[in-house]
Amino acid sequence: MSDTMEAAYNDLLDRVGRIANVSHAGKLLSWDQQVMMPKEGTPARSQQLSALSAVEHDLLTNDELGALLDELSAADLPGDRRAVVREVRRDHERAVRVPTDLVERISAASSEALTAWREARAEDDFETFAPHLQKLLDLKRRYADHIDPDRDPYEVLFEEYEPCLPLGHAEEVLATLREAVVPLVDDVRASEADLATDAFAGTFDTDTQEALMRDVLDDLGYPWERGRLDAAPHPFSTGTTYDARITTRYDEADPMGALLSTVHEFGHATYTLGLPDDAHGTPLGEARDLSIHESQSRLWENHVGRSTAFWERFLPRVRGRFDIGDVSVREAYEAVNAVDTTNPIRVEADELTYHLHIVLRFEIERDLIRGDLDVAEVPAVWNEKMESYLGVRPETDTKGCLQDIHWSHGSFGYFPTYSLGSVIAAQLFDAADRDIDGLEDSIRRGEVDPLHEWLTDRIHRHGKRFETNELVRQATGDDVAAAAFVDYATEKYGELYGIGR
Amino acid sequence: MSDTMEAAYNDLLDRVGRIANVSHAGKLLSWDQQVMMPKEGTPARSQQLSALSAVEHDLLTNDELGALLDELSAADLPGDRRAVVREVRRDHERAVRVPTDLVERISAASSEALTAWREARAEDDFETFAPHLQKLLDLKRRYADHIDPDRDPYEVLFEEYEPCLPLGHAEEVLATLREAVVPLVDDVRASEADLATDAFAGTFDTDTQEALMRDVLDDLGYPWERGRLDAAPHPFSTGTTYDARITTRYDEADPMGALLSTVHEFGHATYTLGLPDDAHGTPLGEARDLSIHESQSRLWENHVGRSTAFWERFLPRVRGRFDIGDVSVREAYEAVNAVDTTNPIRVEADELTYHLHIVLRFEIERDLIRGDLDVAEVPAVWNEKMESYLGVRPETDTKGCLQDIHWSHGSFGYFPTYSLGSVIAAQLFDAADRDIDGLEDSIRRGEVDPLHEWLTDRIHRHGKRFETNELVRQATGDDVAAAAFVDYATEKYGELYGIGR
Repeated sequence: MSDTMEAAYNDLLDRVGRIANVSHAGKLLSWDQQVMMPKEGTPARSQQLSALSAVEHDLLTNDELGALLDELSAADLPGDRRAVVREVRRDHERAVRVPTDLVERISAASSEALTAWREARAEDDFETFAPHLQKLLDLKRRYADHIDPDRDPYEVLFEEYEPCLPLGHAEEVLATLREAVVPLVDDVRASEADLATDAFAGTFDTDTQEALMRDVLDDLGYPWERGRLDAAPHPFSTGTTYDARITTRYDEADPMGALLSTVHEFGHATYTLGLPDDAHGTPLGEARDLSIHESQSRLWENHVGRSTAFWERFLPRVRGRFDIGDVSVREAYEAVNAVDTTNPIRVEADELTYHLHIVLRFEIERDLIRGDLDVAEVPAVWNEKMESYLGVRPETDTKGCLQDIHWSHGSFGYFPTYSLGSVIAAQLFDAADRDIDGLEDSIRRGEVDPLHEWLTDRIHRHGKRFETNELVRQATGDDVAAAAFVDYATEKYGELYGIGR
Repeated sequence: MSDTMEAAYNDLLDRVGRIANVSHAGKLLSWDQQVMMPKEGTPARSQQLSALSAVEHDLLTNDELGALLDELSAADLPGDRRAVVREVRRDHERAVRVPTDLVERISAASSEALTAWREARAEDDFETFAPHLQKLLDLKRRYADHIDPDRDPYEVLFEEYEPCLPLGHAEEVLATLREAVVPLVDDVRASEADLATDAFAGTFDTDTQEALMRDVLDDLGYPWERGRLDAAPHPFSTGTTYDARITTRYDEADPMGALLSTVHEFGHATYTLGLPDDAHGTPLGEARDLSIHESQSRLWENHVGRSTAFWERFLPRVRGRFDIGDVSVREAYEAVNAVDTTNPIRVEADELTYHLHIVLRFEIERDLIRGDLDVAEVPAVWNEKMESYLGVRPETDTKGCLQDIHWSHGSFGYFPTYSLGSVIAAQLFDAADRDIDGLEDSIRRGEVDPLHEWLTDRIHRHGKRFETNELVRQATGDDVAAAAFVDYATEKYGELYGIGR
């Protein structure tokens, strides 16, 4: 590479590093807002987040950066550098189409909406949230319109979260999934199997639950010197490879909720922690998009945390913290895998009905963005769809359309990535199981390093080196597809519910 | 004001608001680094703080901002707007002289130094900190040189913290203070008075200490909806008028240390909280400089927290949390006011010897910056000066030159503001006492609102409307001067130690 090109590439890295650092600062401010910030801190925090968004936008849309990207795109760069240029260029080209003041307004509106959502959820009062939702929809439609006025705004917004997996491919996967899950859930509903759903019934002190969460994170090898565990109403994970934090939430009646949530967020954190230190602040040090991120959380939550092997190891830990009587490993396995077609809460859903929660949200948000549904109709439509897909009508909006934080973040097009994540998780676990001798046994012995290393090698360490489908193909040999999940779910729930015997 | 001028002023406010928000974001990142961040988070946090510093510097040195300031400085603006322009212009003109990459390097170096200082302090190992200190001194000297190569670099750095109180005026105050304190400490040392220094001897569980801190903050009216209390190795207060956080530190053997620290940081927080919401993000919503900030913390710590009136109210609270036997109000008063000429720790010092700790640091940092002292000599010089001024030689560097966080922040010229703060606190308390009927009685009854309101009215609500000396003169009728403190200390310690009877 010529000296001029070398200098241009280094200039690019400096600029990209600053953008990444401002973005990481914003993530810390958001973490603090959800975990630590006092109640009346919102006006100042909203302004801070808006300012950082605007700064990031200004840096990303900078003309000199555009010229550098043009120059470097035309050059014959080695593979990794080509990937860096490709990723920055995609972000730059999208960002230049959106005016800074709109970005700033969206950030401010979503920060205010977050507070309104919290209150609305606490008070079961959709109407106080509705104007915030309306405002965010209007702003996000305008946002999509700036990026491409000729395309479906929902498709444009979906690409915010999945820039390199076409919506068409994603919809195909989701359709296959839906076709398989609906009859499987019907079979489960018809089954007379009596699973040990009350294995962990009772009241479980939340301080002790927290200690149990620290046990499981210790067992899974969470590096505390690069992380934290805190409580948040809607659990999330955030940070950098140097500092990847987890949150969970506690319910005295449901220690398994906190546990699976913690393992899920641990999965997200392992991805962040597995990104290479030496690429920090470049696209090769950033996670590939949301479906891949979610594949990591789902893999640990579902394929590890809900496995018999895990429970053989972990049940004694639960017994060390709580008096759970003579619950057996099989009963624990049944309790964390039982399908509940009556629970209206997505984050408490089993692996199977979960996808129906996603379909519902996908349909509603798509119709809201397209202008085919009014905000005022959301609670009614939500409840009708719940009844039709899951056979349950939420008693309150708190348990219905107010349960998720996403829309208050202005995130429309995000929900499908959860189902995509599940699907990819099943593909990855299958491939890991082929590659690692005695994977199940090693989990049973509490040795998770081989799985961890496999995932780091196949996924984490690449950052954004490959596009989504390519990354999955390199890791598993297959394109992103629903087949692995369908096989896994059919076998697992067939066994649990005696289906097809 | 013309429409053009109105537009120019609004443009100024937008720019200033963004700068303030980026600065506030940086403060939150620093809070997190000291209170919440996992150990290995430093490399990423350093980069984030550097990036925000650089962004802030770029925004502040922007040419269009410079042109706006020129235009507005020449216009006939109303008083408040004139003050805003004056304050922004001062910052702009200072900042344009310093290259961005130097600012970024100082921020990165101080973030790394902070971690090194923590380790050095824990290990009593000055040598691991020394190269970081050397690097910061070199960088700060270069910094001062960029601002004004013809002036004493220490004077230039002092103005970083006290931009509108000339070093000459400050030195005059410090000299008067020193002349009075040295003989007073001599008299105390010669006194045979036997104060109840062991009133709070024993072991005090730190969780219960925290509960006691929450009691005192409740009593003082700290608004929890706009604040938090956490632990930090070096207590500090930070934030905005919407979110002003306090930290304190706990020592099982010294509950009064945590208490006075908490009341001190509460004083800082009240200032931040008293800044007007509607001027948030402008100089009228920012605190006047460090000496005024410190006057607020010292006023609450010394003139309230160390008063008999306060202890009449508060001693039962201590008794509610700890078994302290039959300690009387007088004994508590003596315990928190006893002069200890043997303690080498600044933050544990009484009001009197405190100033000698400041003189020592002032002399050392001034000599370091001027190049009259080598870093390697710091421990020896520190210990000699301690022996000469206070009659005590620290056993370790941890208790000596490694005790303070300031130099690891690259803060040289900061220490004198502490003594200035004490002096102004005494002036303000005298004036409040003249203005508020029965101030002492109201404190005794736990009614601190009148004092609070007086301080908000005279100091907090003005932000940076007035320059330092003008602000103090408007509040008290006098220029910044040591006389009020000298009178207060002479009377207080005269009574406590039977001096001059």
